[in-house]
Amino acid sequence: MKADTLFPAEPRAVRARVRSGEHAGHTSGLAPGFVQGNVVILPSRLADEFLRFCQRNPKPCPVLAVAEPGDPALPTLGDAIDIRRDVPRYRVYRSGLLADTPVDIVALWLDDLVTFILGCSFSFEEALIEDGLEVRNISCGINVPMYRTSIATQPAGPFRGPLVVSMRPFRPADAIRAVQITSRFPHAHGAPVHIGLPEAIGIHDLDRPHYGDPIEVRVDELPVFWACGVTPQAVIAEARIELCITHAPGCMLVTDLRNTRLASL
Amino acid sequence: MKADTLFPAEPRAVRARVRSGEHAGHTSGLAPGFVQGNVVILPSRLADEFLRFCQRNPKPCPVLAVAEPGDPALPTLGDAIDIRRDVPRYRVYRSGLLADTPVDIVALWLDDLVTFILGCSFSFEEALIEDGLEVRNISCGINVPMYRTSIATQPAGPFRGPLVVSMRPFRPADAIRAVQITSRFPHAHGAPVHIGLPEAIGIHDLDRPHYGDPIEVRVDELPVFWACGVTPQAVIAEARIELCITHAPGCMLVTDLRNTRLASL
Repeated sequence: MKADTLFPAEPRAVRARVRSGEHAGHTSGLAPGFVQGNVVILPSRLADEFLRFCQRNPKPCPVLAVAEPGDPALPTLGDAIDIRRDVPRYRVYRSGLLADTPVDIVALWLDDLVTFILGCSFSFEEALIEDGLEVRNISCGINVPMYRTSIATQPAGPFRGPLVVSMRPFRPADAIRAVQITSRFPHAHGAPVHIGLPEAIGIHDLDRPHYGDPIEVRVDELPVFWACGVTPQAVIAEARIELCITHAPGCMLVTDLRNTRLASL
Repeated sequence: MKADTLFPAEPRAVRARVRSGEHAGHTSGLAPGFVQGNVVILPSRLADEFLRFCQRNPKPCPVLAVAEPGDPALPTLGDAIDIRRDVPRYRVYRSGLLADTPVDIVALWLDDLVTFILGCSFSFEEALIEDGLEVRNISCGINVPMYRTSIATQPAGPFRGPLVVSMRPFRPADAIRAVQITSRFPHAHGAPVHIGLPEAIGIHDLDRPHYGDPIEVRVDELPVFWACGVTPQAVIAEARIELCITHAPGCMLVTDLRNTRLASL
């Protein structure tokens, strides 16, 4: 979804529109150049184990920030962020089941909720496009296809399950360039985890992704697979914990951090 | 070919044994940690055009040093190098045809010969092995398979022809790691130029390389292709110039430069 040209380009202004209720949709293309984050909010008794899960699985779960228990602020990611109101749409899971999709979570907030913000592929997709590569899910205006793989995450406490990957097709020389570019973004899933040979990671039909939309891989292209931020959401759903709040797909937290600041080089 | 354990490890000592005639064979594994170079020696009237060819094709032809016309020294690559005597075996081409394979070229030397030293894959192969990857041509003790491709080099003067690539098989995750590692070595051919899909670059039968030995690509592996230092040799042979001297395959110039100093990061 492209940003309306009248839409504010500054992260603070985007968050203000979200907070006021003027924008409740996707954030792709908003505040170009700035980091957007996956949101996971958990009761504090599970937060330590989830942080350990992230530490053990940094490619799908690159932690950008962990808030203090009960504190809706994220001062390292932006001025005056209120995580209860600054995400366009939330998903509330109870015992692993989707219970609600509200536009704010003020009424649900509890003193022991801990917020995690995880890096997202928007940051590296922007770098790929700026290098002249075609990111087909963006040029076609569809969701990237995502697949559960036969690669297991490293478990921690109740959190365990398969690695979920996103797939983007590239011609071989562009795939090599994409490895180089995304290697610079370890906090946005980093380098691909797999290339070509989908069966080798348990993907038997590229045309039937488990999440998102299918994308054609042409005869002169290879499928390139990155660790995906849906991994923690799938893991959390499987753990059937009593309460977990995430962003709705595509409706991310827009931060004040520049994408270039995520680059390691 | 493995180094004799009694063989000196210091580049200067290796060159002394070569110069004295004690060693006239391959240099793979000698002076580990130090850069070895491809050698191209041309009449000065062609040197400018060859340098322009190298500049336009840096992946197959990464220039480490260009000597002064008629000067057999290469002071930036090592103390007291004499390019007429410090390569274990040479190849002398006249009008594009192999005329001789001497162990020194003192009698052939002319005041207008210009020496080029080009980076070689030994440097990045060492980095791959140190990272724990299997480089099969080394673990099997055979020559890397090389292929003429449908990718044209950028011509300069009489120098033109297809890019020649070397191929090493890796499982996908290792292929991604190999892209990262070799990207750090732009002066040793750098990142791969192609991965998977050999037909896309005009390679119709991996089992029949144009140079070197065939290597099995297993079902869980992809062929990964790097620009190869045989490219300039093939281009020079095609140009049928009156005199050109190169190293014999595998019999490189051992320099005092450390491989790690070639790494860009």
